[in-house]
Amino acid sequence: MVVDPTDNPAENSAEAQSKKAAKKQAKDAAKAAKKAEHKAAAGKQDETPEDTPDYSSGKYGQPAMIQSVEKHPERNFVPVTKLIEWIGRKEAVWVRGRVHTSRSKGKQCFLILRQHCSTVQCVIAVSDAVSKQMVKFTGNIHKESIVDLKANAISVPNKIESCTEQTLELSVLEIYVVSTAKAQLPLQIEDAARPENPDDPEGLNIRVNQDTRLDNRVLDLRTPANQAIFRLEAGVCRLFRDILTAKGFVEIHTPKIISAASEGGANVFTVSYFKDSAYLAQSPQLYKQMAIAADFDKVFTVGAVFRAEDSNTHRHLTEFVGLDLEMAFKYHYHEVVETIGATFTAMFRGLRDECAQEIAAVNQQYKVEPFQFLDPPLRLQYVDGVAMLRAAGVEMGDEDDLSTPNEKLLGRLVKTKYGTDFYILDKYPLAVRPFYTMPDPKDSRYSNSYDMFMRGEEILSGAQRIHDPEYLTERAKHHNIDISKIAAYIEAFRFGCPPHAGGGIGMERVVMLYLGLDNIRKTSMFPRDPKRVTP
Amino acid sequence: MVVDPTDNPAENSAEAQSKKAAKKQAKDAAKAAKKAEHKAAAGKQDETPEDTPDYSSGKYGQPAMIQSVEKHPERNFVPVTKLIEWIGRKEAVWVRGRVHTSRSKGKQCFLILRQHCSTVQCVIAVSDAVSKQMVKFTGNIHKESIVDLKANAISVPNKIESCTEQTLELSVLEIYVVSTAKAQLPLQIEDAARPENPDDPEGLNIRVNQDTRLDNRVLDLRTPANQAIFRLEAGVCRLFRDILTAKGFVEIHTPKIISAASEGGANVFTVSYFKDSAYLAQSPQLYKQMAIAADFDKVFTVGAVFRAEDSNTHRHLTEFVGLDLEMAFKYHYHEVVETIGATFTAMFRGLRDECAQEIAAVNQQYKVEPFQFLDPPLRLQYVDGVAMLRAAGVEMGDEDDLSTPNEKLLGRLVKTKYGTDFYILDKYPLAVRPFYTMPDPKDSRYSNSYDMFMRGEEILSGAQRIHDPEYLTERAKHHNIDISKIAAYIEAFRFGCPPHAGGGIGMERVVMLYLGLDNIRKTSMFPRDPKRVTP
Repeated sequence: MVVDPTDNPAENSAEAQSKKAAKKQAKDAAKAAKKAEHKAAAGKQDETPEDTPDYSSGKYGQPAMIQSVEKHPERNFVPVTKLIEWIGRKEAVWVRGRVHTSRSKGKQCFLILRQHCSTVQCVIAVSDAVSKQMVKFTGNIHKESIVDLKANAISVPNKIESCTEQTLELSVLEIYVVSTAKAQLPLQIEDAARPENPDDPEGLNIRVNQDTRLDNRVLDLRTPANQAIFRLEAGVCRLFRDILTAKGFVEIHTPKIISAASEGGANVFTVSYFKDSAYLAQSPQLYKQMAIAADFDKVFTVGAVFRAEDSNTHRHLTEFVGLDLEMAFKYHYHEVVETIGATFTAMFRGLRDECAQEIAAVNQQYKVEPFQFLDPPLRLQYVDGVAMLRAAGVEMGDEDDLSTPNEKLLGRLVKTKYGTDFYILDKYPLAVRPFYTMPDPKDSRYSNSYDMFMRGEEILSGAQRIHDPEYLTERAKHHNIDISKIAAYIEAFRFGCPPHAGGGIGMERVVMLYLGLDNIRKTSMFPRDPKRVTP
Repeated sequence: MVVDPTDNPAENSAEAQSKKAAKKQAKDAAKAAKKAEHKAAAGKQDETPEDTPDYSSGKYGQPAMIQSVEKHPERNFVPVTKLIEWIGRKEAVWVRGRVHTSRSKGKQCFLILRQHCSTVQCVIAVSDAVSKQMVKFTGNIHKESIVDLKANAISVPNKIESCTEQTLELSVLEIYVVSTAKAQLPLQIEDAARPENPDDPEGLNIRVNQDTRLDNRVLDLRTPANQAIFRLEAGVCRLFRDILTAKGFVEIHTPKIISAASEGGANVFTVSYFKDSAYLAQSPQLYKQMAIAADFDKVFTVGAVFRAEDSNTHRHLTEFVGLDLEMAFKYHYHEVVETIGATFTAMFRGLRDECAQEIAAVNQQYKVEPFQFLDPPLRLQYVDGVAMLRAAGVEMGDEDDLSTPNEKLLGRLVKTKYGTDFYILDKYPLAVRPFYTMPDPKDSRYSNSYDMFMRGEEILSGAQRIHDPEYLTERAKHHNIDISKIAAYIEAFRFGCPPHAGGGIGMERVVMLYLGLDNIRKTSMFPRDPKRVTP
């Protein structure tokens, strides 16, 4: 086996690699490549030959790096989850997977092979077909290495509790290393996958901390919970788009590089743009609204959104994925609120029905309370929400915004009273919303705006926007906004624009709150916060 | 009607608006808002009353800005394309649309109402129900204003050539202005929608130039061709995702803000990131590959990609939408090439079958040659492509890259010989590909890499990537790349990584080339190039 010369814990991080190490590495790599060239495509082993002849020679080893030489169409690859169909059949199967754990015991080696969320026990025991050398080779394969094995699926009398495939094991006939992992890993998958159980003091001690996970995300993402979280996240996006497309929405793409900071210039990242400066869009809102003014009627967009907020909380990222939508309506913005509400309900139904396996996998590691929702969703007036909070002892004025603790409290009160983890809060005070928010026609202290909540945390903010350029100007002036800086925004409404409303959803928040996770970094594959831009 | 005080062509652009104009505007806006408040919800008109009593009073006018007061559930709104079902029925219909053109002729007014790509003729003629004042009011509505009208659908004896609905007209009973457009528009929709016909000298003279279009994109996007282009573009993304999802791919999201410039630091935008600097990702490649190393097996991502190239050509943007995919394979990268090829073929079939209306609408303005493709797609070896070019008189070395003119020529030669607008060119010379490209195992002058072409222009570049960290280091050194700068990239492969290949597709290019358009700015809703970051 090619031994990695940098297999030294102090040199595990990329940053720690000195030029010298890199040079040595390259030299060894050249050697290794040369060695590989001279090796047959399969079967030669690197172990020192033992005294006894190796009658398994050619049935195991580390072939040369796969460089697309052969296609091996004769190899019948079967997913681990389908192995059950091959129990007791004469025909052998091929499986590619990772060495999850490996344990040698006398003349046999037990190896647990992992494929995504599935694991299966494999046995290599000395026999007429399997030599001592082959067993030894197998026992020395580093954890997390990728192997191809040919095996027979065999029924087992006692359930194998440590694997997802509990009724069978693989009796290995051939085994080849496709890709070797370093001997020492910065984190163990078993530790990273350990259930969070506050009653298990040992579990707490060997928990992998978040920065170690994120620094070594390629390993961390291999846990069954992470495999499931990001498959469910893909489901959220798919459902969002499919549901809206079925309702006649058109997907659009809005620029991330913009010439003027959207809302006054706070919390915006600056980009050097040739000889000039530009900004990263904090929201696609202006562009969604322009698409409405351009007759696209109902639009959505899924894309990166940037916030230069120096917030180091469990729910803030500097870059996240926005699920944004905007919709022209005939006479009342509740046409839009109902559409968004129905979209969420359909999404929750879809996740429940289509991602049950993923939810179960996450639940193995993190305690997930099933997400409850009503259909149609609950819609409360802001004043009624305030009344509920006051009845619970909170002191706040009619036109005060909800603090984060009060949002959470209201979420609990709503859950108790109505039995739902999702609700819509309508008619926010005008004073706490942006200048482009349409005031309530009946009570100027309020507005045609709304937030939506999951488990007591805001996941959508939206409103009817002012579509009349004169009135928009008036409201901007009222907010002391420099009109010249938003002239382009106002201009978009001078050529006829239908009344419209919309909202923006944080994708990572939806996944975090749907699963009841405690940190948004768990639902961003490569999270960005004020202190992290790597990997 | 509220007259816009800034209705002056010199002040049409947002940039031209002085602070003074903005001030005046706001004052007028305040007046207008006050006026709107005092107006009844419907029916009052702003025209000076004539001597004769107005027996249509209350059946037309400009109601107050729609602020979500009433819901009007009794109004039966019908899309223009469905009006045909209402011909001859007693029941009146409601239609919301834009005034495309309007022409007064004695006691009647002909108005063409537009809704997306559809147009219908509306007639308001003086009668027992329609007053002179109402006809006059209608004749004065600015083009591009949005109106609600109540009307009867009536069959016409002669085809109305100027409308998409040619067999009917609307006899208007009521008409209300929902949103007024400025009297003077920076471009006329009719001009912007005029077919490109080199034989029509008049057509060429009144063509709207590209910068005028892009400066006033909200208007320009209203042309039938643009309505169709961006609906087809949504179809490209939908098909790309649906086809890959059905093949077991998982959608991921990769960060746009990165800590190190991907390929040496050229052509990259710098972002100020709190007290530090960061970069905008030129491709999601490293992250796609990390997802593969993290066991996601087959991934795709749709998102913004940034190139700080000072290229002002018909096919370069500084920000575009990347359709990227990456896939682990068993033994040969052709498993991936076949998957990508089949994805394109399925996409072309989907566009042809599901977007026929959109293609026809674009064809009304721009001559579109139907896109031809083979199933399975044609795959040529690079050496054979070079041989075809040489046979056509091109002088080039075996290991030379294809110049843009040669790519186009080869596209024409392939089209003539094989009858396809799409093909795959496999086995590029190693020397012209990035360091992470896997060399051809049989001939080290070539590589396991490929480009794909539509109408002779490259729309995908891809390869088998080197998944062995030692060999990757060796190749990087061969390219004189500072290993310390790509340590994080190499590190991702030290924990076991399956062989994999992938590619990146430019969404706007696919749409441009599928439709045979001449400029990528036609297929980016809000294009970004070295000279344009607005609107």
